[in-house]
Amino acid sequence: MRGLELKTLGIGLIGTGYMGKCHALAWNSVAATFGTDIRPRLVHLGEVNEALAKQRATEFGFSKSSGDWRAVIDDPDVQIVSITSPNQFHKDMTIAALEAGKHVWCEKPMSTRLEDGEAMLAAAERTDRLCVLGYNYIQSPAFRQIETLVKNGRIGRVTNIRVEMDEDFMAAPDMPHSFKHRVESGYGALDDFAVHPLSLLQRLCGLPVEVMADAARPFKTLKGADNEDKPVETFDIAAALMRFRDGLTGTLIVNRSAWGRKGRIALQIFGTEGAILFDQERANEFQLYLRSDDAEIQGFRTILIAPVHTPYNHFIPAPGHGLGFNELKVIEANEILKALSGETARLVDFSQGIQIERVVHAMASSHASGKWTRILS
Amino acid sequence: MRGLELKTLGIGLIGTGYMGKCHALAWNSVAATFGTDIRPRLVHLGEVNEALAKQRATEFGFSKSSGDWRAVIDDPDVQIVSITSPNQFHKDMTIAALEAGKHVWCEKPMSTRLEDGEAMLAAAERTDRLCVLGYNYIQSPAFRQIETLVKNGRIGRVTNIRVEMDEDFMAAPDMPHSFKHRVESGYGALDDFAVHPLSLLQRLCGLPVEVMADAARPFKTLKGADNEDKPVETFDIAAALMRFRDGLTGTLIVNRSAWGRKGRIALQIFGTEGAILFDQERANEFQLYLRSDDAEIQGFRTILIAPVHTPYNHFIPAPGHGLGFNELKVIEANEILKALSGETARLVDFSQGIQIERVVHAMASSHASGKWTRILS
Amino acid sequence: MRGLELKTLGIGLIGTGYMGKCHALAWNSVAATFGTDIRPRLVHLGEVNEALAKQRATEFGFSKSSGDWRAVIDDPDVQIVSITSPNQFHKDMTIAALEAGKHVWCEKPMSTRLEDGEAMLAAAERTDRLCVLGYNYIQSPAFRQIETLVKNGRIGRVTNIRVEMDEDFMAAPDMPHSFKHRVESGYGALDDFAVHPLSLLQRLCGLPVEVMADAARPFKTLKGADNEDKPVETFDIAAALMRFRDGLTGTLIVNRSAWGRKGRIALQIFGTEGAILFDQERANEFQLYLRSDDAEIQGFRTILIAPVHTPYNHFIPAPGHGLGFNELKVIEANEILKALSGETARLVDFSQGIQIERVVHAMASSHASGKWTRILS
Amino acid sequence: MRGLELKTLGIGLIGTGYMGKCHALAWNSVAATFGTDIRPRLVHLGEVNEALAKQRATEFGFSKSSGDWRAVIDDPDVQIVSITSPNQFHKDMTIAALEAGKHVWCEKPMSTRLEDGEAMLAAAERTDRLCVLGYNYIQSPAFRQIETLVKNGRIGRVTNIRVEMDEDFMAAPDMPHSFKHRVESGYGALDDFAVHPLSLLQRLCGLPVEVMADAARPFKTLKGADNEDKPVETFDIAAALMRFRDGLTGTLIVNRSAWGRKGRIALQIFGTEGAILFDQERANEFQLYLRSDDAEIQGFRTILIAPVHTPYNHFIPAPGHGLGFNELKVIEANEILKALSGETARLVDFSQGIQIERVVHAMASSHASGKWTRILS
Repeated sequence: MRGLELKTLGIGLIGTGYMGKCHALAWNSVAATFGTDIRPRLVHLGEVNEALAKQRATEFGFSKSSGDWRAVIDDPDVQIVSITSPNQFHKDMTIAALEAGKHVWCEKPMSTRLEDGEAMLAAAERTDRLCVLGYNYIQSPAFRQIETLVKNGRIGRVTNIRVEMDEDFMAAPDMPHSFKHRVESGYGALDDFAVHPLSLLQRLCGLPVEVMADAARPFKTLKGADNEDKPVETFDIAAALMRFRDGLTGTLIVNRSAWGRKGRIALQIFGTEGAILFDQERANEFQLYLRSDDAEIQGFRTILIAPVHTPYNHFIPAPGHGLGFNELKVIEANEILKALSGETARLVDFSQGIQIERVVHAMASSHASGKWTRILS
Repeated sequence: MRGLELKTLGIGLIGTGYMGKCHALAWNSVAATFGTDIRPRLVHLGEVNEALAKQRATEFGFSKSSGDWRAVIDDPDVQIVSITSPNQFHKDMTIAALEAGKHVWCEKPMSTRLEDGEAMLAAAERTDRLCVLGYNYIQSPAFRQIETLVKNGRIGRVTNIRVEMDEDFMAAPDMPHSFKHRVESGYGALDDFAVHPLSLLQRLCGLPVEVMADAARPFKTLKGADNEDKPVETFDIAAALMRFRDGLTGTLIVNRSAWGRKGRIALQIFGTEGAILFDQERANEFQLYLRSDDAEIQGFRTILIAPVHTPYNHFIPAPGHGLGFNELKVIEANEILKALSGETARLVDFSQGIQIERVVHAMASSHASGKWTRILS
Repeated sequence: MRGLELKTLGIGLIGTGYMGKCHALAWNSVAATFGTDIRPRLVHLGEVNEALAKQRATEFGFSKSSGDWRAVIDDPDVQIVSITSPNQFHKDMTIAALEAGKHVWCEKPMSTRLEDGEAMLAAAERTDRLCVLGYNYIQSPAFRQIETLVKNGRIGRVTNIRVEMDEDFMAAPDMPHSFKHRVESGYGALDDFAVHPLSLLQRLCGLPVEVMADAARPFKTLKGADNEDKPVETFDIAAALMRFRDGLTGTLIVNRSAWGRKGRIALQIFGTEGAILFDQERANEFQLYLRSDDAEIQGFRTILIAPVHTPYNHFIPAPGHGLGFNELKVIEANEILKALSGETARLVDFSQGIQIERVVHAMASSHASGKWTRILS
Repeated sequence: MRGLELKTLGIGLIGTGYMGKCHALAWNSVAATFGTDIRPRLVHLGEVNEALAKQRATEFGFSKSSGDWRAVIDDPDVQIVSITSPNQFHKDMTIAALEAGKHVWCEKPMSTRLEDGEAMLAAAERTDRLCVLGYNYIQSPAFRQIETLVKNGRIGRVTNIRVEMDEDFMAAPDMPHSFKHRVESGYGALDDFAVHPLSLLQRLCGLPVEVMADAARPFKTLKGADNEDKPVETFDIAAALMRFRDGLTGTLIVNRSAWGRKGRIALQIFGTEGAILFDQERANEFQLYLRSDDAEIQGFRTILIAPVHTPYNHFIPAPGHGLGFNELKVIEANEILKALSGETARLVDFSQGIQIERVVHAMASSHASGKWTRILS
């Protein structure tokens, strides 16, 4: 699937919203940050109409622009396509891009429907192209160090794991009823959020094998544009009990109506020899407790990321100065370039991504049935 | 049940461990702290043998001591009995004390078995004596203020509630197998811990009406004194999904093998207008987020307890100087004196306590059955 | 000066304000907490009039009361006198008590005027009575552990030390002009606050030998009761550069008009092998950084006080449950009982206290002269 | 001095160390981030030799490279020069660039010697070119919001200000003696660090008018490469008392040997109506206390930066996701482009920069003389 020896890489970008801009910034910065062998060339940007596409192409530094995403995919100068459109379009774009021989870097989740994700995986398996999902939180130097500590046994065998992801962009009781409140948009917080913490668990302790979930709607109805009450169909809050292999248990809680939380992804990992804490709202630090410390000085260390926590060193040679959210995408872009150079890379491919989404759908199913639900694998 | 007009109150104390000393300190300090009308007299202390009883009586300032708890209960100078013995003895001591016409202040939980608790409640209902359970965390000035804010609607309607209680005294893989690992000691973390966070929920949003719980053993076996592996029968970790009245949902997690946690009882309360956070490890502060703040200054306030947060003012006239864990018991003792004076008091009586324990047993039952379980009330 | 073999100790108390109540609570609790050999008897309480004295005596558990402090001192049943009156009365009361053969436990500072403190020291040197100043912050388990770590060289040689003490009780621009704004009350924040952080420095690294201070008034005038502007004569803010022996330097900052600070005493201690942080607003924890940790896990540990940090264990057998401000006084009372039993005790006696006050007066003098000022010793 | 209407801007870069890479990344990202009218073109990179220059040019995306910085300055395609060489070279490069008609963006400080800075200012005043110093910390969304709050009077009149800057890269007692320990490198922590906090004060409350400073060497000697003890001539620690206009006082402390501190720039700003706290180690948040809050909920808010805190919104449309240190330089680059477009820009020009450096040199002079020293302006 990898191994080509490009010296430049033609970039196509579909979508220029939140994540589209993030991809554009990453492609602009990755070579200067990492001194990569492969140098991205910003070739072709697609948006919903010509005018917007042209404007964004100018801003982001792309040479060409189109109001039709198929033009990006068909462009022979494009070798990899960043797909950052709304989730329901991921399937068609990804499959088309793969069939056109492009590499694909598609934002998570694969799709709103599990069968679409499975179709994307099937398409990926028919090619040797790189098929990557945009899971940026696994790239952070803090999380990488946490993963290393866990894998090296610094906190012993993991005995309990908890993860919460909370924001408050859907917390206001006077917000208008929107597409995100309708069942067509998906399940709610489970689709929107749960894939992120699950991508972390996947690397720390593997995904759960059985789940028991509940979900809730903080608002039964909201006012529409016509000032009429409309039913809220999605679930802004969800929680799950999780059972992993070898007796490990844990919990996952997600909430997009949690006032005061802005970008919280809080991990608590307890092991037989210590514990680790992390919160994405303070992404440049993590906490570690080791029972091997002398009794009178046992406590959680707050560790600021530093050059020793690669790849922070590629950004800044001094410790404690901090990376930002967008810079995680630069690291992810570098991993893609490594993969294309045949090096081992740290990425979530479609086969790993589908496993995450199977867990999400099992949680939704468990909520619907009120029963413990095994994950199909 | 209340209303007597004592001017002194004869105190009996059974048990002088962790909680027994805490009661003794509270009875020593309550009058000086609060300037109470009723003044406790430390009358009679019971322990497992005469020598220990005598030593502790001297230390704690009690006039009499006995190696038999029945002597404390039978002492005509004793009017209220602090029962701080191991949980399995609570039932017999409490019922005997009530039958002897004493008031009872019994440490939580009522018992290890639900039917014992029900028997204690039945005995309480046959008398007009005060029957109080030792739930100290509801007494803290921070928690009282949190409760007031919630009840006054400062964070709107509560939409999601989470509570965790974690310590690490059973986290070491090389600890010896003990009574606490045997099924006779109860269920594990659910009995040991869950009653505390539930006592907080009871006041904030009422107890759950339906629960779905899971539990786990971090260690399958531990070495006994004979260096043989013994099976661990209790569950050091438990988690529950909870459904309350009116669509509110929440989670409860308890763990007595959580390295680094020493006395954590962490509350997260999300409402339609704001959110509140609290952690017993930093019991002299809590956090409040209000969406009504101007947009550019919205954030969690860290509020240090101050004289405005009664009854902190009875201890210290200056803000931010902090109370300790033992001082919560002084507040609780004052509430008992208020109840005995016929005033409204903030206490957990047996009828409230049994409701807490029904939830715990429903959680245990849910874990055993793997099913959502309704709480009988 | 010590060595008597009392089995009970008759307590006299003068003053029942903030610190008077704190002393009363400590004398009520010390025996039960520590199981002391010497048992305090609460004998005689003095206040400014009979009625108040009687009321407080009842509340605090004293047998006798008087509206004249001399009656307390003259009472043959009193063996030690807690002096908690306003600072300007300390000298006369202390000297009278010593001359009456009593031990003295006098709240800090010794007096508002240095010569009064010197006179008190002279009186102390004429007796063999115990002469203790009420410096409670040195008693905290966290600070004791910090001191042990520093003395054991865990952070190497100390190279820089900073201490801040801030509260906000004099921060409101609309507060009425009061006695504390007049020069008769002393210098301002230097008298009020600086002695506390200096008592910590005295134990950590010794007192400074040379200081350079500045001071400021946040308000030039305040309204009096007559609604007229009155000049503020005291300095609510002060800062000093400090030079210690052996090239160590540091800073001290005090402010009683610092909005948001309630009981902050923040220490930063940097050494050649690590660093320690402490803040009295979170008095049940401290932070430690050790450069000997592996590079990728170097960070400040947040250490919660635990039974291993004596004498916390005398209060609570479990870690992380926390002591309160008033409980520091219980520890101090126990140190006094130890001293009276001939044991080594951790206390600030008059000869140590006068050194602290000399530094304060040197700071005031430096501010007045604008020059570096050496401490007389 | 401004006003030209370029549509592209030819960039020259001298130096590719810590700050050189930071400039390169900023020039790569600014257009895509801000959608700027002026688009930077990366033209010419200078380093100490051809090989290194060529390598970095490839990595950073520059078209041309030279082993001689004069070639960059002489390049007619270059319109602005980023000068990130060691401080002692700033003067010659800057003056040459200005004389060649280029705009200059020179890293702080202007130079190690005050007279060099004055010469740079004089050169700047002879041209109409943009002369900017690289003070990135004033660009952070958190600091911008703090400045707005202060200027809008949200915390009333500022009454006390404290700033500390600490790192630990020179804290190890076994580090080798280096150029930074020699007097030729400058004064020590004052040059290295003090300019940063002063750049913040300059915007918040103006620079001090009088200072009293002390400084210290944590190590008298260090081993050289020859294993011989060499004297340390610079001061790794410095502290200053500061007096501002209108009676405001404050303190500044800097330390480059403070174990555990990695990038701390801690501000405490106290006013008559509230207080603000900030620490660059957690640069994506700040704290605000307002006395106008209801008494029972007064506390420091922890405010996470959000789109409402411009220009964060140009990076990320969601709150709480965080910017990194390098992204401050992107904001600074955008301010330069704004200035070149004739818009009001937030930058430190040479006339402001020289004022900062006069304060630093007055502090050094005060330390040498032991006296309060007025700032010449």
